[in-house]
Amino acid sequence: MEKTATDTVKLALEEVKPFASAALKRAGCDEVNADAVAECIFQAERHGAHSHGLFRMPGYLASLKSGKVNGKASPKITTSKPAVLSVDGDGGYAPLAHQYMAKPLADLAKSQGVALGSLTNTFHFAALWQEVELLARQGVAAFACTSFKPALPPAGGTKPLYGTNPVAFAWPRENAEPMVFDQASAVMARGEVMIAAREGHTLPDGVGIGPDGKPTNDPNEVLKGAMLPYGGYKGASIALMVELLAGALIGEQMSYEAAANDNNDGGPPRGGEFILALAPNGNASLKSAEGLFSQILVQEGTRLPGDGRRMKCAKVSENGIEIPQSLFETINSK
Amino acid sequence: MEKTATDTVKLALEEVKPFASAALKRAGCDEVNADAVAECIFQAERHGAHSHGLFRMPGYLASLKSGKVNGKASPKITTSKPAVLSVDGDGGYAPLAHQYMAKPLADLAKSQGVALGSLTNTFHFAALWQEVELLARQGVAAFACTSFKPALPPAGGTKPLYGTNPVAFAWPRENAEPMVFDQASAVMARGEVMIAAREGHTLPDGVGIGPDGKPTNDPNEVLKGAMLPYGGYKGASIALMVELLAGALIGEQMSYEAAANDNNDGGPPRGGEFILALAPNGNASLKSAEGLFSQILVQEGTRLPGDGRRMKCAKVSENGIEIPQSLFETINSK
Repeated sequence: MEKTATDTVKLALEEVKPFASAALKRAGCDEVNADAVAECIFQAERHGAHSHGLFRMPGYLASLKSGKVNGKASPKITTSKPAVLSVDGDGGYAPLAHQYMAKPLADLAKSQGVALGSLTNTFHFAALWQEVELLARQGVAAFACTSFKPALPPAGGTKPLYGTNPVAFAWPRENAEPMVFDQASAVMARGEVMIAAREGHTLPDGVGIGPDGKPTNDPNEVLKGAMLPYGGYKGASIALMVELLAGALIGEQMSYEAAANDNNDGGPPRGGEFILALAPNGNASLKSAEGLFSQILVQEGTRLPGDGRRMKCAKVSENGIEIPQSLFETINSK
Repeated sequence: MEKTATDTVKLALEEVKPFASAALKRAGCDEVNADAVAECIFQAERHGAHSHGLFRMPGYLASLKSGKVNGKASPKITTSKPAVLSVDGDGGYAPLAHQYMAKPLADLAKSQGVALGSLTNTFHFAALWQEVELLARQGVAAFACTSFKPALPPAGGTKPLYGTNPVAFAWPRENAEPMVFDQASAVMARGEVMIAAREGHTLPDGVGIGPDGKPTNDPNEVLKGAMLPYGGYKGASIALMVELLAGALIGEQMSYEAAANDNNDGGPPRGGEFILALAPNGNASLKSAEGLFSQILVQEGTRLPGDGRRMKCAKVSENGIEIPQSLFETINSK
């Protein structure tokens, strides 16, 4: 690692995972929990998704130190109904549960046709493309969504109620990386707004409203007010569905309950995740999807969801990453 | 029925279903198929959703008369995998299949936890809120989506590839009508653009592009060019997911294939529908959802999805509906 002129620290990509893992262990994680979270952070940085990379470490560490999150979690998997895999996250971060559940959930989908992974008692602070991609690598299509803390107003309202509530979907491919999208129900991901606030940038129009309910371009005002859903009331419908699927349906907190019960230590609140795995109809399904992908790519200016992110890997691998000195020190402190 | 000064015909609401049913039977439907489609048209008109009401009848009739659609369809239900109900629509319109599958699909979801209704070999020309609402009345949450013919470009492109690809979701409530949303992946439903074209109205900004790939407010140009997804690339992701779920996954045509194989008689192309039913976790789930609904309604200016539509029923019931004379005659002709 190397200190640069503008109070940032450069890390080689290979340094990210051990750096994160060591800090997580100092904050109370055992080896497997630290490894699962550090792998997620490494993958985020590797794919240029910096808002879900080391930038999230202070939150991860704070919730371990406050005792809210169990750094020695041992997720428990049971089959509550024939097509439902119930995963109790044991109060830990979600990535270890994702690793544990990927194969059994994919196998259940293959035997039942469809299977629901109902993840409760967990803390989700990462990007959802990672878990749906894990499932697609097992040969199934996957849909996942999770809530957080209120950030978006319901359609017609002005006060935050729904989380930014990301939805991710992955489709398996035989001779290529899975097709994967992962998108917040907000116009902009909360992590991006937080980065804009940290770096003093203004936001584009339409991203959010201030505490007074009026449009603003100031990220700090938006973080105090409300972010806006994409596509107006239609994005709000998606966010509402996510609250019901990842909360009411599976028996976990919704965003407004999560916020009310959180200790505000800077990390994520406790919540649930709805993960659906679907078995394609063999080779015919995969071949059919490839036909659609060809039709997408024949148009100029297009690419498949997920490929833009992957195109960043080579550059990040060559150049390494750069984080603020203050962030480096927070992660590196005892 | 009464002819008005501006070349329209007024119908009492009670006249809608028999009027539609008689026309469907003249065009070749048997009693049960005619009744199922006519009930859908009646429900659409009753809820003020005129773009899915009698306005669709010429399309329904044309596809019966051309022989593309089987007016005497007898949908066949099999359980291909333990949590999958495979419904072969027998080349008929979808509403009868929806009636047949609602209870067995809900029952399967209750026993398995989750169940997929895979509807193939069918022709879908109605609004999806009707089938998800049927399921919610059986006590399950439901998600449905279907493709059509290319209308939306993929993200980054300018040529139609995805259908307007609606997504609908319903949640059951104990002492109230189900919470239901049903939204096209396009900014505006195709039916609305067709009505604007018919009535000579211009479209708001952002609804579509012309055949030259440039924004336009002319509905006729948009019908020749492309409609735009809501929320930019995020709505395009939803539309892409719908193609894969209602096409590649269940073994049916996607929009671009449906268009290539259609006889362009004015009715819908053959396609599939992905219908997911999810069993809530008993009363706890329902109570939890009511908590969220209260939080929505406490904000000024809000209402639950589906309630806006229902609020129109009383007025439509009192005033009846008015359709163009030419539409009346098309439906009324031999």
